[in-house]
Amino acid sequence: MKAVGLYRYLAIEDSESLLDLELEVPVPEAHDLLVRVKAVSVNPVDTKQRAPKERVEATPRVLGYDAVGEVTQVGSDVSLFAVGDEVYFAGDVTRQGSNAEYTRIDERLAAHKPKNLTDEEAAAMPLTTLTASEALFDRLLITPEKDQGKSILIINGAGGVGSIAVQLAKLAGLKVIATASRPETISWVEKHGADFVIDHHLSIPDELSKIGFPNVDYILCLHDTYRHFEAMEQAIKPEGQICTIVELSHPVQMSVLKDKSAGFHYEFMFTRSKYQTTDQIRQHELLENARALFESGELKSTLTKVLSPINAETMRDAHKIVESGKMIGKLVVKGFDESD
Amino acid sequence: MKAVGLYRYLAIEDSESLLDLELEVPVPEAHDLLVRVKAVSVNPVDTKQRAPKERVEATPRVLGYDAVGEVTQVGSDVSLFAVGDEVYFAGDVTRQGSNAEYTRIDERLAAHKPKNLTDEEAAAMPLTTLTASEALFDRLLITPEKDQGKSILIINGAGGVGSIAVQLAKLAGLKVIATASRPETISWVEKHGADFVIDHHLSIPDELSKIGFPNVDYILCLHDTYRHFEAMEQAIKPEGQICTIVELSHPVQMSVLKDKSAGFHYEFMFTRSKYQTTDQIRQHELLENARALFESGELKSTLTKVLSPINAETMRDAHKIVESGKMIGKLVVKGFDESD
Repeated sequence: MKAVGLYRYLAIEDSESLLDLELEVPVPEAHDLLVRVKAVSVNPVDTKQRAPKERVEATPRVLGYDAVGEVTQVGSDVSLFAVGDEVYFAGDVTRQGSNAEYTRIDERLAAHKPKNLTDEEAAAMPLTTLTASEALFDRLLITPEKDQGKSILIINGAGGVGSIAVQLAKLAGLKVIATASRPETISWVEKHGADFVIDHHLSIPDELSKIGFPNVDYILCLHDTYRHFEAMEQAIKPEGQICTIVELSHPVQMSVLKDKSAGFHYEFMFTRSKYQTTDQIRQHELLENARALFESGELKSTLTKVLSPINAETMRDAHKIVESGKMIGKLVVKGFDESD
Repeated sequence: MKAVGLYRYLAIEDSESLLDLELEVPVPEAHDLLVRVKAVSVNPVDTKQRAPKERVEATPRVLGYDAVGEVTQVGSDVSLFAVGDEVYFAGDVTRQGSNAEYTRIDERLAAHKPKNLTDEEAAAMPLTTLTASEALFDRLLITPEKDQGKSILIINGAGGVGSIAVQLAKLAGLKVIATASRPETISWVEKHGADFVIDHHLSIPDELSKIGFPNVDYILCLHDTYRHFEAMEQAIKPEGQICTIVELSHPVQMSVLKDKSAGFHYEFMFTRSKYQTTDQIRQHELLENARALFESGELKSTLTKVLSPINAETMRDAHKIVESGKMIGKLVVKGFDESD
């Protein structure tokens, strides 16, 4: 099968940073689906995994996590899916990725593709939807029942995770304050339901005070955690909860959080699959919940850009665009060139 | 009225570090109880508040938070208590304290004294019970329903908060692993219900592995957070929750917690009263819940030492003992000398 992968971790400008490869079709294990891939999306995690480092792989490594495709074979213990099902999923960082004609995925990490979305609209969503859902519902433990009208600050509302997090937080009944700084990102987050938009290049506590929210119940940080740490300490309510998906680039002391009895959570979408936690099936459930919301029209795909076909040259272009850090919404790469 | 207080913040060896004073009886506000104090306990927070610093008070400052006494007057809006009620409470760090013949306390922070405990047994308990209850139930969000058989590591199980936290965690259905290092502290935590005791002077991850718990669901840190930080990062399960009551003495980076999608919480018993949160009455509820458990015999007072009477000399002795860091359980100071 065709695949895009790497042996060495090189700058994306290097033509060998991602290579066209011919690999064996993977064999599904007991809980695995074998999936014929139709579209994949590129997330910051792809570029982080590919980032230059000394290591050299003895066998080629395939990146790619988000995918949409059709189940062509199932492992002996699979109970949630059948051959012919269309699925969407965000993968497992410990396995070969989805940038290939076929990939295998544990059924507990996959869900049925939303019927009303195109392949590319659906491929844009799993990783960001899981990250946002786990952050809001499994780390911050937000529920529509107890949190109606409470406030959440989403730092970087216009990126991939931000665009779906704003929608999910709004659906859960929260007052959503998102940050964005350019005219196009401001209108993007407003379109996705943010009640207020403030500029993260200004003082976040000052901007929050101006709109009447000197403190917020929740903060979801989707940008440089270290840079925003003091602002978050100031902005969070006593007993409030902060979640970030971005590692701290420098150490912090967190003394204000002590005075406020506040909580600080990390969300990493690959924790469940990497550590094989007993609740892995929660990813299946969260993606099925999101499917229902896509199908009812309550959630919208955040797709903004499609490239084609899936090959090394296009994937290098896709990585370059995502590495720029300026993406609004999501970028998808679609289809294999059948002419070869 | 008689009171013990300070103008200057001095080493406890200084005879002026705590002074005998004659002050006006405080006047209760709308939600306040005026309480005639019978016994108080000394906690590490008392010594931290008194610790040497440059500030000088224009009017004398009264320390003391834990107290037991009788309600002698109630504010206009008080609904939970009546004159003559015996109460126990842990106070409010923003007000004058309990080391006085009379003190005033917001009714939302107080509860009825457990009937089966002596004044000194009851005075030992409010601050540590609230700290442990808030940490376990309001920060770590432990419930008997969802957490039966889950594991918690309590670092420093023999101190004031540890002695009651071990009991409360055990009652909630958790497997409790407490740390202690001296023969007398080991037998103390075993007596309070710890399933396992490990030595925090050894490698905590290694000691946990030896007893069959390489990872734990929860960690409650009641000792030097910075010193134990790496051990906690290693020991916590993926998606696990850590709570500490001790400020970090140095910055930390927390990168392992990211990989595990773990949470890090602070508990500070004075957050609710200091920030006047809307859920202040939770402290009344937690202390009433504890009262029921003391009265049924499911919780035991952790009192180990009683001094008398409440005056500057005895309070200086009490502070010295607590500052040593070697206290097992709790120290109470009881009664005013009526002979003066």
